[in-house]
Amino acid sequence: MAEDALSHPGLDKDAGEEFLQEAFQVMLEEGIRKGMDASEKVCDWKEPEQLQQILDLELKHDGEPQERLLERCRDVIRYSVKTCHPRFFNQLFSGLDPHALAGRLITEMLNTSQYTYEIAPVFVLMEEVVLRKLRELIGWEKGDGIFCPGGSISNMYAMNVARYHCFPDCKQKGNWAIPKLAAFTSRECHYSIQKGVAFLGIGTDNIYLVAVDEKGKMIPADLEKQINQAKSEGAFPFFVNATCGTTVLGAFDPLAEIADVCERHRIWLHVDAAWGGSALLSQRHRHLLDGIKRADSVAWNPHKMLMTGLQCSAFLLRDSSGMLQRCHCAKATYLFQTDKFYDMAYDRGDQTIQCGRKVDCFKLWLMWKANGTAGLERRVDRAFAFTRYLADEIKKREGFQLVVEPEFINLCFWYVPPSLRGQEGCDDYSVRLGKVAPVIKERMVKKGSMMVGYQPLGNRANFFRQIVTNPAVTKKDLDFFLDEIERLGRDL
Amino acid sequence: MAEDALSHPGLDKDAGEEFLQEAFQVMLEEGIRKGMDASEKVCDWKEPEQLQQILDLELKHDGEPQERLLERCRDVIRYSVKTCHPRFFNQLFSGLDPHALAGRLITEMLNTSQYTYEIAPVFVLMEEVVLRKLRELIGWEKGDGIFCPGGSISNMYAMNVARYHCFPDCKQKGNWAIPKLAAFTSRECHYSIQKGVAFLGIGTDNIYLVAVDEKGKMIPADLEKQINQAKSEGAFPFFVNATCGTTVLGAFDPLAEIADVCERHRIWLHVDAAWGGSALLSQRHRHLLDGIKRADSVAWNPHKMLMTGLQCSAFLLRDSSGMLQRCHCAKATYLFQTDKFYDMAYDRGDQTIQCGRKVDCFKLWLMWKANGTAGLERRVDRAFAFTRYLADEIKKREGFQLVVEPEFINLCFWYVPPSLRGQEGCDDYSVRLGKVAPVIKERMVKKGSMMVGYQPLGNRANFFRQIVTNPAVTKKDLDFFLDEIERLGRDL
Repeated sequence: MAEDALSHPGLDKDAGEEFLQEAFQVMLEEGIRKGMDASEKVCDWKEPEQLQQILDLELKHDGEPQERLLERCRDVIRYSVKTCHPRFFNQLFSGLDPHALAGRLITEMLNTSQYTYEIAPVFVLMEEVVLRKLRELIGWEKGDGIFCPGGSISNMYAMNVARYHCFPDCKQKGNWAIPKLAAFTSRECHYSIQKGVAFLGIGTDNIYLVAVDEKGKMIPADLEKQINQAKSEGAFPFFVNATCGTTVLGAFDPLAEIADVCERHRIWLHVDAAWGGSALLSQRHRHLLDGIKRADSVAWNPHKMLMTGLQCSAFLLRDSSGMLQRCHCAKATYLFQTDKFYDMAYDRGDQTIQCGRKVDCFKLWLMWKANGTAGLERRVDRAFAFTRYLADEIKKREGFQLVVEPEFINLCFWYVPPSLRGQEGCDDYSVRLGKVAPVIKERMVKKGSMMVGYQPLGNRANFFRQIVTNPAVTKKDLDFFLDEIERLGRDL
Repeated sequence: MAEDALSHPGLDKDAGEEFLQEAFQVMLEEGIRKGMDASEKVCDWKEPEQLQQILDLELKHDGEPQERLLERCRDVIRYSVKTCHPRFFNQLFSGLDPHALAGRLITEMLNTSQYTYEIAPVFVLMEEVVLRKLRELIGWEKGDGIFCPGGSISNMYAMNVARYHCFPDCKQKGNWAIPKLAAFTSRECHYSIQKGVAFLGIGTDNIYLVAVDEKGKMIPADLEKQINQAKSEGAFPFFVNATCGTTVLGAFDPLAEIADVCERHRIWLHVDAAWGGSALLSQRHRHLLDGIKRADSVAWNPHKMLMTGLQCSAFLLRDSSGMLQRCHCAKATYLFQTDKFYDMAYDRGDQTIQCGRKVDCFKLWLMWKANGTAGLERRVDRAFAFTRYLADEIKKREGFQLVVEPEFINLCFWYVPPSLRGQEGCDDYSVRLGKVAPVIKERMVKKGSMMVGYQPLGNRANFFRQIVTNPAVTKKDLDFFLDEIERLGRDL
């Protein structure tokens, strides 16, 4: 490279800003305005091969002009699913909060890492305030915590800290130096518990699955039985995971009774409240989590019900002695220098298993500042009210049948097409019913009218799981939702 | 909640869009225009207590008006470090690429998760194309891979897949069912290797640290010695980590010789090219990674040298038999239904340890489309040329001393103030020299003129590590950099 080239900047700032301005307008127009418009498609569905052709994804030797790049942005948005659409009910997240999004945009522009005060002064302080607020809602005056890249990893942190709490030597010596561990969780827990024990070298065989009642809640007596079973097999019970808001049914495990069992056996109690944690914001519904303050750790994802945007997952710890730091620190002297000019307690990055760590607090903080705790509470209550409304509607409509009465905002139901009604007794009823939801789903996606998830559960055939967290949704959208299921499925 | 409330949207779309428009302009003005302006401060430094007061971070019961929220956005930007500033040299990332940023903004707006084709059709296809391109640069025609939340977690994936490769039963049975594992890495490796073995239940004592030469490169003969040592101790060598671009010195371990050792002993070879991987884009400098195609897995972070923005970390695998999937899958039927209407091979989310996973491919893809492989190559070459320029300047200047001749873009040097010159032989020379960098650093941060990192290494006292990846930097900024170090340190 000619040395002269170094005398001039290697990128054009003005052209760059112009592109950003235009891309932002494309984003507003194609993504937000159309995305939030119920008369537009949730998704312009294409088969993979077809989409591959349309998008021309290959990366080539030469760059492309700005106009072509803007078209590409338009296409990417066009063929993506609009998770902000008022008829997108497919996941545990949906909707678009403008303040949270503004927080995300500014975070992306600032592009810093959360590890040291030196390069993230605002966000180091802000993370602490946000985590403290979440802990306060749990009922903890003190404690610790950190934002993690998603609830699965938050749950893994919990297991690792629980293991460290029992056997600090494990960090140096590995699992070979400690007794075989046993973890306990209900059959309805999130699959990250399974992924976590595998990743941490504990092994999925060392999970003891605890029975649930018909609503999907863990049965504490069975937990105790499983603990005794594990002990009799020579295993060391180190970790109980209770779920607040199971993925499918939205069940809340009975925390107080589970905490009693854990206390009796001196086992770490982790609460996976990734989904249900946000109910703590509601005076009316927070009783679902009664007993959560007795937990040793909690995972809570504001990116789900609170709409902060992916990812915003808090791992919260009751311990305030610095266990999180001791468990994870590696003391790299090139990042966490010990001779800095400011109080190095603010360099909190060594509490994590990551090095660079995205800033996940600002979007939640700005949204909270905009809405206040009161505004967030209203949103949570609104989601509950929608679920109530839909459950009542379902009871009135022929061919719709609740799987369980909802206690949270998971609304699980079957649509039974006319051809299957009254045939509950037949041998192949369940098999035939199980084929209904996938076809309705295919039809709605290809039409682009809406999106909702379905799944089987135990011996229950495929049923829909409807979730409304998006405050832009109105009753009209929900009436449409039920009508559309009928329209798409009545011939099956 | 009154049922009537459900008839109306719970958020105001127009007000939301207006806020976004205004926040975007604040971002451009305060963050990008001022951020990229060399005459502005890199950071308006405040002590933590002071900053806490200014920002009023507490989260309250009521929301705040839009004007106040915009002010808050302005303050957050103002007191944050401008990593896009042409005099920010503090980390292994810096600068701002407008196309990558546009990709990030649109990604945030679309707010989807990478797990299924159903809700991320464009990004599922795009991730595969981008990963294939990175594998191609490594020299692999086939293979596998996934974007992870940072290089530390990519390195953990490598360890977990290597363990699974040797002992697939470990996933079910845990480490207790397999021999004690031994991992090998150089003394200069990234600290995530340490964090990884601790997290995976392998234990930091089971890392065998391999000696390095004076440039910081692993000595293959010592690797072989350590492997034999581990075997003689009854441990099972399962994982060798070679580093391409060590964090401090930027050293490249000799891959071909290391691969020979690994083949002889049949050990998994992982290359941590998180930092140095991007040199593969340069015809002129890619020889630094000769032999990388013989690796079993590679971690490569385009968010560092290529400026995609945090986080963009690829974990790449030579295996194309689906090992990644087998190693990590949990087969949750509520997400990865087996009766979908499209080819479910596109639902790649069960390859990961996460559930929700951010879209990290689009920013890299859009930047690549804008610049072409040729444009990215020019950037990489420019970074090397800057390092060369600075190294030459340092040799000309009195009081500046290189720690090692750079082979990559880490420029490590001491500034020796006049009071210390010619005293190399004195007993306390090293102690006194070690105190220079922290003071200069404090002064530059408080002044806001620039930012650069420093650290000790082994028995070398604190030295500066200068990194230029930002193409907006010119020779003038580098001349300023050296002059400023002299100005800030000449009285020490």
